Amino acid sequence: MSTFGRPAGGTFESGVSRVAYSDADRSARAWLLDEIRGAGLSPRIDPAGNVFARFAQGASSAETAPPLLFGSHIDSVPGGGNFDGDLGTLAALEAMQACRAAGVRLRRPLEMVLWAHEESTAFGRGTAASRIVAGDLQAGDLDQVWNGLRRADGIRRIGGNPERIEDAVRRRGAWHAYLELHIEQGGVLERRHVPIGIVEGIVSIHRYDVTIIGMANHAGTTPMNERRDAMLAASRLVVAVNEAVKARPGRQVGTVGRIDVSPNSPNVIPGRAVLSVELRDLSEETLQALGDEIQRRAHAIAAETGTTIAMTLASRNPPAAADADVQAAIGRAAERAGLEALRLPSGAGHDAQMVAALCPMGMIFVPSIGGISHAPEERTSWEDCARGASVLLGAIVALGTR
Amino acid sequence: MSTFGRPAGGTFESGVSRVAYSDADRSARAWLLDEIRGAGLSPRIDPAGNVFARFAQGASSAETAPPLLFGSHIDSVPGGGNFDGDLGTLAALEAMQACRAAGVRLRRPLEMVLWAHEESTAFGRGTAASRIVAGDLQAGDLDQVWNGLRRADGIRRIGGNPERIEDAVRRRGAWHAYLELHIEQGGVLERRHVPIGIVEGIVSIHRYDVTIIGMANHAGTTPMNERRDAMLAASRLVVAVNEAVKARPGRQVGTVGRIDVSPNSPNVIPGRAVLSVELRDLSEETLQALGDEIQRRAHAIAAETGTTIAMTLASRNPPAAADADVQAAIGRAAERAGLEALRLPSGAGHDAQMVAALCPMGMIFVPSIGGISHAPEERTSWEDCARGASVLLGAIVALGTR
Repeated sequence: MSTFGRPAGGTFESGVSRVAYSDADRSARAWLLDEIRGAGLSPRIDPAGNVFARFAQGASSAETAPPLLFGSHIDSVPGGGNFDGDLGTLAALEAMQACRAAGVRLRRPLEMVLWAHEESTAFGRGTAASRIVAGDLQAGDLDQVWNGLRRADGIRRIGGNPERIEDAVRRRGAWHAYLELHIEQGGVLERRHVPIGIVEGIVSIHRYDVTIIGMANHAGTTPMNERRDAMLAASRLVVAVNEAVKARPGRQVGTVGRIDVSPNSPNVIPGRAVLSVELRDLSEETLQALGDEIQRRAHAIAAETGTTIAMTLASRNPPAAADADVQAAIGRAAERAGLEALRLPSGAGHDAQMVAALCPMGMIFVPSIGGISHAPEERTSWEDCARGASVLLGAIVALGTR
Repeated sequence: MSTFGRPAGGTFESGVSRVAYSDADRSARAWLLDEIRGAGLSPRIDPAGNVFARFAQGASSAETAPPLLFGSHIDSVPGGGNFDGDLGTLAALEAMQACRAAGVRLRRPLEMVLWAHEESTAFGRGTAASRIVAGDLQAGDLDQVWNGLRRADGIRRIGGNPERIEDAVRRRGAWHAYLELHIEQGGVLERRHVPIGIVEGIVSIHRYDVTIIGMANHAGTTPMNERRDAMLAASRLVVAVNEAVKARPGRQVGTVGRIDVSPNSPNVIPGRAVLSVELRDLSEETLQALGDEIQRRAHAIAAETGTTIAMTLASRNPPAAADADVQAAIGRAAERAGLEALRLPSGAGHDAQMVAALCPMGMIFVPSIGGISHAPEERTSWEDCARGASVLLGAIVALGTR
């Protein structure tokens, strides 16, 4: 666990922008490929740009059984941190090295993976490369252009093969199980002083687009009772979303992160407001009920403000449950390491969500200092990084030798 | 009153963009200068670009007494209408022609004015040319650049003389009084079925800039009770402004017309929101009390949402009262024309507000259909245009011969 036990030189860079397909992303991938080769492994890049490296020792069946997969990503959001994805990727490589060095006798191959293109910055689409592996690929997806880059060219740039993209799709049961160590990106573990999180599942996300039409008018000449103020209606809806989400027991969250008002001038009553409403929970039933309630409230607000409010479901990501046996294996690994563990949902999306369609999956979380992520201040203490890597290794040994 | 009695050809253009200093503005000014000359008058352009044309007949004192001034503007907002400003300008010219044709014996000269640059589109500054006449000119004002145009060059482009701009400033008492006919731009007259509005004064405007600082964070991983959501705080403030303004009796209005949220992404809790709060009323005391109350509410919202809210007074236009004698003259002119009249404040700013610092002023309003202005749908019936022009003429005769 030396990698995480002592930071090289004691200094640390932050605010990285390793956006998928960028020069920085490719340079980090090249470095990692060298490290994998340095560990005596032979990395292979699939047509989607994902890097796989396999290793087997032990019984002869170890060569042919479905491998145990583990890994993460290294691409980042612009101005992100150095833990989101990187921790799980480096810990996966270190686990490979440790199993090999210790001569662990395996029942199945170990396979590490570096997922390409996890963050949604590029092409506005997250978990984009594991999504292909899971078979979610639409005609035209690779023709999308973002920042002047065609997606097919981006994939080619990182060593993928867009012409043979279908070969990246894997069948159900291709792996025995999937494990991913990741920073929590929230503040639950830190607040509870618990070093290890056992992910119960990755939440479902229901995202609504809301368009409010009022009537733009002069801010000086229009009496208060004659207004059809889209800003007022939008504000009341934001408050209603917050109230509705908090009113019910549970861990669901709801966010209005985006608003665009027009004409957006101090002396004109806004005639139009467009906003997003995003709801997340492990239970789709909860999200459905919440969405219905917000729709009802929006209807009332529209009537009271003389506006029209159109709220449409723009996207709906199903939840992905973590496998009970994999959760149990992680729990035992934590117990054996003398580390307290807490079960919690993942509010963020991860590649594990896609892999869940192909094999049982589980995730290990470690605390994020201050609950901060996707920002230069993103940090996890080196001790917690090492603890997470230990638990990952323990779970790999348990699932790989059983 | 023939100009307004029958629209030429029965057709009507709307959605004009005669923004000050634009080619369209200059072309309309050139047309109007020809019309003024065609009426036998000699237009003069002052150093700020305002057009004046004077006429006197009657006693010898009529040549030397301070003139009675009347007029309006013809510049527009982008995509505006053809009544805001235009009506008062054309009615002023028609009143000049009518007085001359009727051989009205005057006690003082009549002077019509076309104010340059009334709308705040250009250089973000309204009533900008009458403001110079009233002596409000700061060093550097003419060096401002907007859309690639230096203000001094804009003024030169419309026939002004930026090098001698100080000569545009007029002393207090330069005119006997000022009259302006204008569309209401609100819906009060139409709703009450009253054809003539007698303006009591032009409201004071207090504009606040509000900056809300929360903490940007992951919309999925941050529990509801850990959020410092700048969007939620902003929304609660918008609702509070509306409630505070409506809670007290009177005709005050309050508007949040602008909001900018960052990072403005559906999956990030907003860390920052910037908004405008604009309050208008004839009474500065009311505005002060309202501002204080909104500050108190902002303080409470900040505490409840874990944000900081900084609310600063960005600009403060004092109210401009219409002169009692001028109001009475307008009232008598309406009565003589058999037209019902209603006293009301002007919620919009007008050049009359600037002229009020130099001489007694009064304004005549006519109904805006649907209360709509600054939009292609801006309309006033031709009958109401003619009624307004008649009352303007009656008030001019009353104030010019007395």
